[in-house]
Parts: sequence; structure tokens; C-alpha cells
Amino acid sequence: MHPFDKAIQLTQTQDHGFIGATSPDYANMVGPFGGIICAVMLNSVLGHPERIGDPVALTVNFAGPVPDGAFDIETRNTRTNRSTQHWNMQMNSGGQICVSASAIFAIRRDTWSVSEKTALANPPSPETLPREDLTMRPAWVHSYDLRFVKGGLPGVFEGKVQDDSETVVWIKDEPFRPLDFTSLAALSDCFYPRILIRRHKIVACGTVSLTTYFHTDAAALAKQADRYVLGTARALNFSNSYCDQNAEIWSDSGELLASSHQIVYYRE
Amino acid sequence: MHPFDKAIQLTQTQDHGFIGATSPDYANMVGPFGGIICAVMLNSVLGHPERIGDPVALTVNFAGPVPDGAFDIETRNTRTNRSTQHWNMQMNSGGQICVSASAIFAIRRDTWSVSEKTALANPPSPETLPREDLTMRPAWVHSYDLRFVKGGLPGVFEGKVQDDSETVVWIKDEPFRPLDFTSLAALSDCFYPRILIRRHKIVACGTVSLTTYFHTDAAALAKQADRYVLGTARALNFSNSYCDQNAEIWSDSGELLASSHQIVYYRE
Repeated sequence: MHPFDKAIQLTQTQDHGFIGATSPDYANMVGPFGGIICAVMLNSVLGHPERIGDPVALTVNFAGPVPDGAFDIETRNTRTNRSTQHWNMQMNSGGQICVSASAIFAIRRDTWSVSEKTALANPPSPETLPREDLTMRPAWVHSYDLRFVKGGLPGVFEGKVQDDSETVVWIKDEPFRPLDFTSLAALSDCFYPRILIRRHKIVACGTVSLTTYFHTDAAALAKQADRYVLGTARALNFSNSYCDQNAEIWSDSGELLASSHQIVYYRE
Repeated sequence: MHPFDKAIQLTQTQDHGFIGATSPDYANMVGPFGGIICAVMLNSVLGHPERIGDPVALTVNFAGPVPDGAFDIETRNTRTNRSTQHWNMQMNSGGQICVSASAIFAIRRDTWSVSEKTALANPPSPETLPREDLTMRPAWVHSYDLRFVKGGLPGVFEGKVQDDSETVVWIKDEPFRPLDFTSLAALSDCFYPRILIRRHKIVACGTVSLTTYFHTDAAALAKQADRYVLGTARALNFSNSYCDQNAEIWSDSGELLASSHQIVYYRE
């Protein structure tokens, strides 16, 4: 079994809840990588017997640290309409609510479609770029193959403020794994915190809330298979302990697969 | 009492829930304007006796139509940390869950701050632009003074597809009202659906999920008072029944007050 599938594996309990456990392959500095939590929360809906359609929106609120080890998830269908379905999810561990989340699933129809934003023109191909050096990186980074076109972490945190926080990076699961909605949800959080890139300074920080919109369907994801996707991320604003991040995940043929937004706490 | 304050007014029940009612001043074509629902959901936290700090993030999932008349809101504090607080809210009406939402509140600290994106340079001042013609507009539009710099609804829905869906608009509550977090939450949804602007065609559509990040504090909102704010909105993608919208609300002195993201259903 791929380490990602192991990390998001859930066992259904008698009351339509789920139990799972954190995985050392996706550990961050403290607790698990936020992206794997997003994937787990989404997977609890995907595995629910009442689920219809594919994910359209996922919001994950990181209420507190997720302790290493077992957790349970309560997954509740709040409303089912003709083509849409609303879900609330809650992860409990150590006697507390660690994560609360919501998702909207839908049966999409074939309609007028157009991408208003177009993909970055002619980025250098991933094969011409070095894989990111993994020295001093937490475990989860080892579970991705990251090839930065621009905006990686600075080599030295010398405190010189950069003009912008923009990142462009080719991303693949490591080892390679065909893309699906759960791995796309995880990818949406695999950018380093904008505050570190912008300031070249180690600042305590963490995602507080993340929302991902899925612009694609299972067929397009299957077509992408296990090839690199192109990720972009930047901030609009850093203000008194909170900054945002706006990210996009593009297929290697220039289709927008997901857009993702988050608000991040930083200490100083 | 200002019509907005009347529309978001809630009465606390014995079990820390709230009751309220829809207002004809903020009616949309079917049911209430989404922005007023956002404001009401946020107001249920602002009015909760356990609340600490100011709003940082608000996500509102529109599960189904909100019937005209009375509703109740269950507002639950899922976790309180030292400086952050997580909330889940649910609006019930007509025996169903109509809206589910979450919010994160925080006590902000004075830290390194910078706006990475800058405000639009030298937009024409609102006083030089006509107020939008209200002919055929639903009630809620009459509750705003909208002055379009670009990207209003087309005068004729002749079906000619526009190159982009970008809107730039000066906005004020009508009658004027000093800006606060609730009215900022409502403003974040006062852009017309991108699908109508892009396609010049009437298409059935509606917001499914909306997330707003607040980049400001009560002092900056008080400074803005009741002057016009500048709103911008555009879509990244329209694909098989769903499109997104990314909006920003700027103070008239060029500070980012809020950024807001939504995913919108469209029928064809």
C-alpha cells in the first residue's frame, strides 16, 4: 500500500463515524502535515455510505494540534439536495476537538466551461530542475518530489525581506501515485508558509483555516495520472499575526485542477 | 434602527442559541441575499457570551434556500485556545438545515505587517461615477450604493461572451452606516455572479460556499467609518456547473480589509 493511502486509511465504526491514526510519513515539525489532515477529512466523506457525487469545496479548520496516534472522525451529512450534498466533519483526539471541517459534494453537469485564468506560459519542465534538497526538512516533505521554478525556502534565513512571496513549483507524490481528490486536497497545502518565504526568517506559524475548491472531475484526474502538477502560491496580505495564502494546482496540460485559500497564524 | 441592524438582529434563547427573521430589505430573487446570511451567522458569534477577539475567518455553506420568516441558529464554540477560538454555526428553518457555517476569532497581536498586493492605483472617485440604476434589481441591491468602475451587469443580456469577469466597484451601505465586521462580511458577497457578467446571459446560479478572511481590526474599520470601500472580484475558472469568485474589499485609503472566495453553482 502507498504510504499516502496508509496515512488516510479509515475504519468505519458502527455509528457511521471513522477511526484512523497519524502516520510518521506525513509528520510535520509538530503533529501531522496539514495537507494529510485535509485528505483524511475528505476521505471520511468519500468513504461514507450516503455520499453522492464528487467534492466541490472543502474547508478545514485547524482548531488545535493533532496528537500523534489514533483519532476518530464524526462525519455528518447535513443536507442532501438533488445534485449537491453538504457535510460536516470533526476530528477528535486526546479528548478534544482538533479539527472541524465541512465539504460540499456535487454531481456535475456538462455545461459551458472556460478557464478565465490561464496557466503559466512555458514554465521550465520539471526534469530540467533539481529535486528539492531534503536536508532539515520534516518527514512530509520527503513524501513529495518538489521542483521549484521560483519561490522555494531561502537557503539561509538571513532576515532580508523579499519583495513578494510568490512560489511556482512542480509537485508529485513520492513515491509516485496517480492523482485523485484526496491527494489533490493534500497538495493544496504543500506550499511552505508565505511568511517564511517573504521574510527569510524563522517565525512560528501555522494554518488556521484552509478552503479548497475542486475545478475538475475524476476523469480529468485519471488523465493526469502520476505526472507532475504545477503549483502556484502567493499572499495578498500580512497583518498583525495573520496572513493569507492563495494557491492554484494546474495539470501539466494547463487545466486548473484546484484553487485553495488559507489563513495562517504567525507569532511575530 | 438601520435596516441592516434590523436584518441581523438576533435574540438569544435559553440554550445559547439564537432566533431571528429574514428582512424584506435584503431579499434576493429567491430568499435572502447571501451576504446578509453571512452577516447574521457572524453576528451569532459576536453576540455569544463566550466569544473572545475579532473575526479572522468565516465560511458559510448555503445548504438550501432560506425560507422567508423566522429562523433559529445554533452557535457552538468547538474550541478556545489562548488567542484563537473556533465556532460552528447552523441555521435551521422550515424543519431543515439551511445554512452551516464556521468562524475563527482571534486576539491579534501587533506584528510585522505588510500588504503584498497593493490597491488599484488611482481609480476614479465614487463621486464622479453614477449610482447603479436600480431598475429590475432585487431589494438587497437597493440597500447598497454601488458605483461601478468596471464590470457591472450588462445593460442587455445579448449572449456575447466577455473576455473576463473582472469587476471594480465602489460600495456603501444605503442608507450609510459605519463599517463593522458584520457589514464587511455582507459586502464580501455583494458582487453579481461572475457567470452573468462573463456570458451576458441569464443563467440560474447561486453561491454554494463562501469564505471571507478579515485582514483588519475594529480600529481600522472605525477609521473607514461610512465612506465608500472599493471592491474587486473575478473568477479563475468556470467548469461543469461550478465557478469560483475571488473578491477583495479595500478601504478608500488603500488597505485590504477583507479577501473573500466563493464557489457558485450555475445550471447550464
